[in-house]
Amino acid sequence: MPAPRNVYIAVVGVGGVGKAFISQLEALSQRLSHRRPPINISLILVSRSSQILLSESYRSLSFSTWESDLASSKQPVLPIPDLVEYLATAPEKAILVDNTSNQNVADCYPQFLRRGISIVTPNKKGFSSDFALWQDVFAAAANGSGSGGYIFHESSVGAGLPVLSTLKELVETGDEVARIEGVFSGTMSFLFNSFMPVGGGGGQFSAEVKKAKELGYTEPDPRDDLNGLDVARKLTILARLAGLEVESPTSFPVQSLIPKELESCSSGDEFLSRLPEFDGEMDKLKEEAAREGKVVRFVGSIDVAKKDVKVGLEKFDASHPIAALKGSDNIISFYTKRYGSNPLIVQGAGAGGEVTAMGVTGDLIKVLQLLH
Amino acid sequence: MPAPRNVYIAVVGVGGVGKAFISQLEALSQRLSHRRPPINISLILVSRSSQILLSESYRSLSFSTWESDLASSKQPVLPIPDLVEYLATAPEKAILVDNTSNQNVADCYPQFLRRGISIVTPNKKGFSSDFALWQDVFAAAANGSGSGGYIFHESSVGAGLPVLSTLKELVETGDEVARIEGVFSGTMSFLFNSFMPVGGGGGQFSAEVKKAKELGYTEPDPRDDLNGLDVARKLTILARLAGLEVESPTSFPVQSLIPKELESCSSGDEFLSRLPEFDGEMDKLKEEAAREGKVVRFVGSIDVAKKDVKVGLEKFDASHPIAALKGSDNIISFYTKRYGSNPLIVQGAGAGGEVTAMGVTGDLIKVLQLLH
Repeated sequence: MPAPRNVYIAVVGVGGVGKAFISQLEALSQRLSHRRPPINISLILVSRSSQILLSESYRSLSFSTWESDLASSKQPVLPIPDLVEYLATAPEKAILVDNTSNQNVADCYPQFLRRGISIVTPNKKGFSSDFALWQDVFAAAANGSGSGGYIFHESSVGAGLPVLSTLKELVETGDEVARIEGVFSGTMSFLFNSFMPVGGGGGQFSAEVKKAKELGYTEPDPRDDLNGLDVARKLTILARLAGLEVESPTSFPVQSLIPKELESCSSGDEFLSRLPEFDGEMDKLKEEAAREGKVVRFVGSIDVAKKDVKVGLEKFDASHPIAALKGSDNIISFYTKRYGSNPLIVQGAGAGGEVTAMGVTGDLIKVLQLLH
Repeated sequence: MPAPRNVYIAVVGVGGVGKAFISQLEALSQRLSHRRPPINISLILVSRSSQILLSESYRSLSFSTWESDLASSKQPVLPIPDLVEYLATAPEKAILVDNTSNQNVADCYPQFLRRGISIVTPNKKGFSSDFALWQDVFAAAANGSGSGGYIFHESSVGAGLPVLSTLKELVETGDEVARIEGVFSGTMSFLFNSFMPVGGGGGQFSAEVKKAKELGYTEPDPRDDLNGLDVARKLTILARLAGLEVESPTSFPVQSLIPKELESCSSGDEFLSRLPEFDGEMDKLKEEAAREGKVVRFVGSIDVAKKDVKVGLEKFDASHPIAALKGSDNIISFYTKRYGSNPLIVQGAGAGGEVTAMGVTGDLIKVLQLLH
């Protein structure tokens, strides 16, 4: 099989996901160097918001010392147009790995793609913001209608779970997707599995939020999970892949779990300290569901025929797979013409550095195969 | 994106899966003809065991009349070496779609691949027979260590469910697969979900087998399901993908549900008429499980570290996802280092013409992308 001898990789964003990705990349590059013909992976850039480490003459940075090298780097941060130029003029194919959740980087995806740079990313912003950006991205990409680089973003929904690839295959092979439903947030999953486990019990809602934050299951400010926007972005991506022209993640009903009265809190801490005032309302929901033999869960759903997308609390029978979810797992059910009344279900951890990075590495492998 | 202008497709086996595939291929070829640049799909051969319809000068057969054209065809059936030659000398890339469950065709995959012909197939035989054949296949394939055609067989396990692609991605991205467990047969799923549903009830085992046969959920001779070999073949494929050198589907413990005394029955009908004599034994199993608050299911499992593969009856808590399965659904759980105690789960219909064909069509799309 003909293969590129050299591939140049730039990693933007080196938090939990970025670090896990670089470690997976190191293992992958060792495997690829033993292939015949070998593929030589060069890590030519790593950066975080305030710092950048650029290789000299496109020689690979060190996988063992990149972290301290980056920490001590005094190189000036590269404006995005310069980054595009740097990658577009690499000796062979270059791939941008965007592990940020940055809107500015995502806004520039079409520029990268048009210059032949491929992109793999868990960043939802490029695919869940204005519909015009989505159109620009896939008008430029080789796996869209363009002739530029390839772009894959499996980890933008359900982390490493095979969610987007499965939906794409359903659509491309001509199945009719009727409905997509599921729990799309590890945080929301953990919160409601603890707040109202099947079989009774569970703590006060505000206490569960606090516990989730302490365990590292929420964003630094838990309001960023509770406002539902993270789930709305994921639903936007799925709906667009299913063929709906969703304008933005705020163009359909999204239920926020932030009480109106607490919207003006000046900090996450103030919010957390006042949240117990609203435990009564959550208890009422819980009791109401319990009377019907059901549990409450925070879900997203898409009715493709009705073009109906929504995010919020719903009640489920105790025997429903969504009710039986454990820990911070995600579950995604695809109801289609071919699968009939029993949906195709994908379930498992939908957050965490290692599994998110796995989806990114999997996408990178796809790009390497396509670039041969 | 550069793309082949013409791709030549031969479909061997036109039963339920083959027919559904050709209908999906027709829709796909229409979509691809509107691509820029267009891909022109030519269906140049369809065949069943006793009949063949070959196109003239590699012009496409008619998607609307192929069935009656095949029925009235008097063309002599092509020996496999001639079929290899016919496809290898097509004007551009050729793809063999093997929708049979034929061992002879599978034995020749390396010959097809070495001549640059790609293969997509739900046929388990090429991947679950002697380990030497597996090695030959992937030594020849471009997505193995060879330089020939590509080969994909997603539908050989779990039909259209993303099972093999998921396992491959776990392995290729460097996760450590510890254990794979699941219900891998739609027939066995239906039988045990009916024989011993969660919550009690269910019929006599022999009556459920009869009902499953009447509903078309079993092979024409139900012993071909009950002997466990179908599940053993699927486990062989998964174990090999996980890195175990399983010699054959009979090289590990496989529990047959055919009572010793009935192994010599001369027909499926005689077997079915005598099966009720053994309902007592099955009832005993059922009562034993019920006393422990469990249900009985027919499962396969692979312990990768212990190199332990087995197929047979096991007991599961009523709350276990395997116990909660519905209808004839499959469920496959991947326990890995990254996913921890909560496995990555894929669930849904694992049999049926349309969903099996979908996996084949999905593989074909992959090959078309790789052949660009």
